[in-house]
Amino acid sequence: MSIRRLNTQQPDFAAKFSELVAVDSSVDPEITRRAEAIVQDVRARGDEAVLEYTNRFDHMDAKSVAEFRLTEDDLKEALETLPKDQKDALTQAAQRIREFHEHELGQSWSITEEDGTKLGIRYIPLDSVGLYVPGGKAAYPSSVLMNAMPAHVAGCKKIVMVVPTPGGKPNQLVLAAACLAGVKECYTIGGAQAIAALAYGTETIPAVDKIVGPGNAYVAAAKRYVFGTVGIDMIAGPSEILVICDGKTNPDWIAMDLFSQAEHDELAQAILLTDDAEFADKVAESIDRQIKGMSRKDIISASLNNRGAIIVTRSIEEACKVADTIAPEHLELSVQDADKYIDQIHHAGALFVGPYTCEALGDYCAGPNHVLPTSRTARYSSPLGVWDFQKRMSVLKVSKHGAEKLGRIADVLARGEFLTAHAASAMYRVHDLEKK
Amino acid sequence: MSIRRLNTQQPDFAAKFSELVAVDSSVDPEITRRAEAIVQDVRARGDEAVLEYTNRFDHMDAKSVAEFRLTEDDLKEALETLPKDQKDALTQAAQRIREFHEHELGQSWSITEEDGTKLGIRYIPLDSVGLYVPGGKAAYPSSVLMNAMPAHVAGCKKIVMVVPTPGGKPNQLVLAAACLAGVKECYTIGGAQAIAALAYGTETIPAVDKIVGPGNAYVAAAKRYVFGTVGIDMIAGPSEILVICDGKTNPDWIAMDLFSQAEHDELAQAILLTDDAEFADKVAESIDRQIKGMSRKDIISASLNNRGAIIVTRSIEEACKVADTIAPEHLELSVQDADKYIDQIHHAGALFVGPYTCEALGDYCAGPNHVLPTSRTARYSSPLGVWDFQKRMSVLKVSKHGAEKLGRIADVLARGEFLTAHAASAMYRVHDLEKK
Repeated sequence: MSIRRLNTQQPDFAAKFSELVAVDSSVDPEITRRAEAIVQDVRARGDEAVLEYTNRFDHMDAKSVAEFRLTEDDLKEALETLPKDQKDALTQAAQRIREFHEHELGQSWSITEEDGTKLGIRYIPLDSVGLYVPGGKAAYPSSVLMNAMPAHVAGCKKIVMVVPTPGGKPNQLVLAAACLAGVKECYTIGGAQAIAALAYGTETIPAVDKIVGPGNAYVAAAKRYVFGTVGIDMIAGPSEILVICDGKTNPDWIAMDLFSQAEHDELAQAILLTDDAEFADKVAESIDRQIKGMSRKDIISASLNNRGAIIVTRSIEEACKVADTIAPEHLELSVQDADKYIDQIHHAGALFVGPYTCEALGDYCAGPNHVLPTSRTARYSSPLGVWDFQKRMSVLKVSKHGAEKLGRIADVLARGEFLTAHAASAMYRVHDLEKK
Repeated sequence: MSIRRLNTQQPDFAAKFSELVAVDSSVDPEITRRAEAIVQDVRARGDEAVLEYTNRFDHMDAKSVAEFRLTEDDLKEALETLPKDQKDALTQAAQRIREFHEHELGQSWSITEEDGTKLGIRYIPLDSVGLYVPGGKAAYPSSVLMNAMPAHVAGCKKIVMVVPTPGGKPNQLVLAAACLAGVKECYTIGGAQAIAALAYGTETIPAVDKIVGPGNAYVAAAKRYVFGTVGIDMIAGPSEILVICDGKTNPDWIAMDLFSQAEHDELAQAILLTDDAEFADKVAESIDRQIKGMSRKDIISASLNNRGAIIVTRSIEEACKVADTIAPEHLELSVQDADKYIDQIHHAGALFVGPYTCEALGDYCAGPNHVLPTSRTARYSSPLGVWDFQKRMSVLKVSKHGAEKLGRIADVLARGEFLTAHAASAMYRVHDLEKK
């Protein structure tokens, strides 16, 4: 292992740091082209195209798209037949995630003015949502909970899941999670063809209003393409953790926290910031020692060697400033008196406060969502939440007297914009009052 | 004038209706290519490129980008020197918009569990926002208020406006609106070059975290390109109004309401749904009569002839159902007892309830935002609001006992996903408690 070591006091820190956190957001044009061709084909030919692509890419031999359909009963059965420890853990996680997300529900409101004019915002659940779940090894039941539960809590009646089964057999934990998160309808299809089916609908698969969930480069390209026809969620980059530690946490804990991000993906990024140079050495030593026992040690090593870093800072305050420039997806504040640093962090997807709050607890079961902004987008975006599945509608009801007052203002401003029909429309309501 | 006339009872209604509401979301690849080349050039060459493009496209002869800068004092002066009626109207509109949007402010919250574990959501304003304002005839001060005010109310400290001045002279109403909406910094530049400057920053122009505001096809293409580096708002299609009327409103009012949308743009869409066939005739007659006096009659005629329609429905209930399939940007419920139909509308950007609530009041001064989802996107998206300028951060602080409980759940689920570092990270916290 040779994890990068930096110090904010070294003269070339700024340059080295920029290199470390550079984001490669390039998109392969060939993948985009192929994904778009598949989407257009499914849009044109519907079920027939979905069937062909699924049989070809997932090595299936189905005669109709109906064969890919799983019913609510299939999902229930998956849950009921899980080993008890898994069923219990999944059920408890689902309940905690549901309860937390219920606090996120937006409430309609209105204000009534003295003249009777009433103005407000209505919150309305989306009618239908599509949930993409990757197949194979990256099929994460926790992601099913995290993506579907906010839609379920928002009140979306139709949540349609798609999940490819290249091996022919669906992951039972994934189906069980879907059952717990309110999914009623599922198709074992994937790739750009599944995104197209959800965006435009086919004879068998219903069109939805929004598609969420992670996928490979083809899925991401297909989502970008159908955006506008349907809503989409963020397109996630590689996962990131940044740990700020004052040297008072067990270095083995910190090393393992870094591993827990690095094991996702060779492109994942795990960074430690500490104001304690000796502690930095201890964590480096712990990394070298603990890596040997890890089942995914090749991925972890690649991630830490390529994109990991241990950075010594002048202070915890400085570490918070550095963290803000990274705007990491996950940020652990593993320090004593962690509370007092919370307000120094402005950009992060989720903040894990204190040594007991390791990221893994948030990934699975604490309650808040684990779908978080990556690649510095935490500067302007937010965790997935109920807010992504409720839309808002302005509601205006202007009284007769209100129309007189507002009409005169609108008249002046509309004429200032040379929009005379706007002015006339407003003034009709003003004159109506004057007549009486 | 030959506005299209339909009736939901005619046998080919479905086909005719589909044709009417078809959305053309195609993008000109040549415009995209040119916009992207400009963006890349500005990213590479900064001020130098901004200066060249602005001098060329806006017929300027500036020696440096600094010449394009307007200060807070310039904006204040624009406000102070407005004619009194305009200054008063703009100030009243700004105040109403500010007050309404203050109700939209998201509030941080947290819950504390019995074992001391604390979970919540922090709301944080974006650091910096760029506001694009079109130049020339489409320079709408009302749009400046509607785009900048939610950012200002959210607490964004840096709101940077760009507005091209092809004639060399900025629109004083636009500058005055910017002053009222909290803009402190402005550059008289536009096009793809302005979007690039805001996304990547130049020697003179600061990079921002999110860019909002309408623009032409080049601006839209540039915004699409920089999305990810910065946040962007929706890319708006042509404006739409749908009016549902029971025949009890003055037909001249309804005709003028349709005009007020049609006068924006030849591609704007204005549709009337009524259950009263005689009333439909009266509105058609009013359109023919009133069009003659309109200053923008060519645009209005083109819009109504190409994309307008008067549709007779069996009932107001049916009209609501038809409206829902369109998901219009603006929907006027110009009926008696309008309140009882509100819940029958699920998809619209803004709902204008009752005969006195014409869209123009909402466009300028009622309070709610006039930046609304177009092209059927009201199915899954919302008006621009304070929510677009506050981001959310999850905050988790798990207690020692909480870590023991949650750690065991996370352990089971992490192993179910073959993520053993996640499991180990969680179990370190469990074992710590067991040791004591």
